[in-house]
Amino acid sequence: MKVVALAGGVGGAKMADGLARVLPAEDLTIIVNTGDDFNHFGLRICPDLDTVCYTLAGLANSLTGWGRSEETWNALDSIRRLGGPDWFQLGDKDLGTHLERTRRLSQGEPLSKIVRDFSHSWGIAPLVLPMSDQPVETWVETQEMGWLPFQEYFVAQQCQPRVKKFAFKGVEQSLPAPGVLDALEQADCLVICPSNPWVSIAPILNVPGIKESCEGICVRVAVSPIVGGKAIKGPAAKMYEELGIAPSVLAVAESYRGLIDGLVIDAVDNSCRDELEAMGIHVLVTKTVMQDYIDRMNLAKETLEFCQKLMLYKGRQ
Amino acid sequence: MKVVALAGGVGGAKMADGLARVLPAEDLTIIVNTGDDFNHFGLRICPDLDTVCYTLAGLANSLTGWGRSEETWNALDSIRRLGGPDWFQLGDKDLGTHLERTRRLSQGEPLSKIVRDFSHSWGIAPLVLPMSDQPVETWVETQEMGWLPFQEYFVAQQCQPRVKKFAFKGVEQSLPAPGVLDALEQADCLVICPSNPWVSIAPILNVPGIKESCEGICVRVAVSPIVGGKAIKGPAAKMYEELGIAPSVLAVAESYRGLIDGLVIDAVDNSCRDELEAMGIHVLVTKTVMQDYIDRMNLAKETLEFCQKLMLYKGRQ
Repeated sequence: MKVVALAGGVGGAKMADGLARVLPAEDLTIIVNTGDDFNHFGLRICPDLDTVCYTLAGLANSLTGWGRSEETWNALDSIRRLGGPDWFQLGDKDLGTHLERTRRLSQGEPLSKIVRDFSHSWGIAPLVLPMSDQPVETWVETQEMGWLPFQEYFVAQQCQPRVKKFAFKGVEQSLPAPGVLDALEQADCLVICPSNPWVSIAPILNVPGIKESCEGICVRVAVSPIVGGKAIKGPAAKMYEELGIAPSVLAVAESYRGLIDGLVIDAVDNSCRDELEAMGIHVLVTKTVMQDYIDRMNLAKETLEFCQKLMLYKGRQ
Repeated sequence: MKVVALAGGVGGAKMADGLARVLPAEDLTIIVNTGDDFNHFGLRICPDLDTVCYTLAGLANSLTGWGRSEETWNALDSIRRLGGPDWFQLGDKDLGTHLERTRRLSQGEPLSKIVRDFSHSWGIAPLVLPMSDQPVETWVETQEMGWLPFQEYFVAQQCQPRVKKFAFKGVEQSLPAPGVLDALEQADCLVICPSNPWVSIAPILNVPGIKESCEGICVRVAVSPIVGGKAIKGPAAKMYEELGIAPSVLAVAESYRGLIDGLVIDAVDNSCRDELEAMGIHVLVTKTVMQDYIDRMNLAKETLEFCQKLMLYKGRQ
């Protein structure tokens, strides 16, 4: 069974890692959001790609979910002493990634090739692909501060301003990275990881051709990033509220309406099951909060079994 | 007594630090070579400026003479794991300096202003100036490999190729950094630190206007970087040999002929005294090898006393 996962940062990375632990490497492709990518100190920083890769490589900081384990912060301390901008957490090990990526990009290499080589160096078995080799910029329109580039909203403003709208600059002109459409065409299942639907999954789906190719996949499921009306991490619940939508698994299902056959929800949201099914969405109720490697593997296994059931069900129709 | 020091890297930095320890801050200006500056990973790296500033700030690695004390190497380890170029030693603390300098340069700030602000942040009292705000590139013509940019020759090739000639690209179009000509015009003494005459001091003297202004200073002395026919550090002695000149304090005097009134030499070179004096150069024989702070201060004190004597002598003529 060939699986493609769409992933943003921390939650997506954990789910992708679970899938990587239970699937043969050749059966898994992970397509990662690059709408959060930005330039800082002249470096090209790709937060979601790095979080996914560090997690798959076992290099991630397991406490924060982002950044490197056993990280040091000497460069940032130097910058701070010189009065430079210190709002973005640049760890020393992490800086090595940004420096080498930026060096290779400046020589004209496409991001997807760099990610493939980095994955190889880090011992990552499944194929990890950026959604696009072209830069796409997620912007957030806020009540208080107007349009903000994503990292300014997310890190510098700590998601405080209320959101009104999202835009993905450059997405219309972007192309799926080499390998993305092939993977989607060959996939039996699409798994949308528990990432933010607005700013992690939407940018991927907006790259011309990706959503259409996803729609051609036999079985498509999402794992809800909303559990008990809250986001495990990040501003997804807050965004739903600010957009006038009660944050819930129903809202997640609505976000992906027409795209997904099934939704994986946490046991705390069991009461929403009937309503989801009334929307025509198949439901798997399980433990979706991933606190350790066992949780990641269990969630991946159950999600894949759910996909297999849906494949059989679709085959019978 | 107003003093201007010309300095390159390690030896120059130690002498500058000695001068800073014995002179009132307002009486000392240090003009630093920027011909070694280069771009690496998109960062602007200024090795001599950083060595001088780290040394004056007490932040330098006292074992190597360059780089920061208590440095870590996590970014470079990351780069190495990704197969990136690791020939230039980029410490984590040091990286913070390069990142913030590059950020500010990219915003159009002149290097001299950035150096002033960094000096302030680091608690450096005397005025430190780059020789120029315009980029000047030192290139080395070698027997074996043709023309090499300085860092390629110095670090990547470890000074192995034999030198034939030097060039300072861009120097004709460069201007002395703001403050350089003022400092030289107000100076009573010029001290040429024990730096490499070919690749540390020559680039400074080749910036249009600097050599002419130096010649107007009442007393001008150099401290020989050659001791007992060898360089304390770096390729100066090897360069003299490859250019067909026996490395000695006489060769140093020859390099600065017409520019200096006096030369400070080490006791091991006492036998050259008569020959130097026959060249019309006044000589101070002392301990010039600086192993600790006391050595730096003693050398600075004796050099300044030597300058004072030369001023009196010139006054009597």
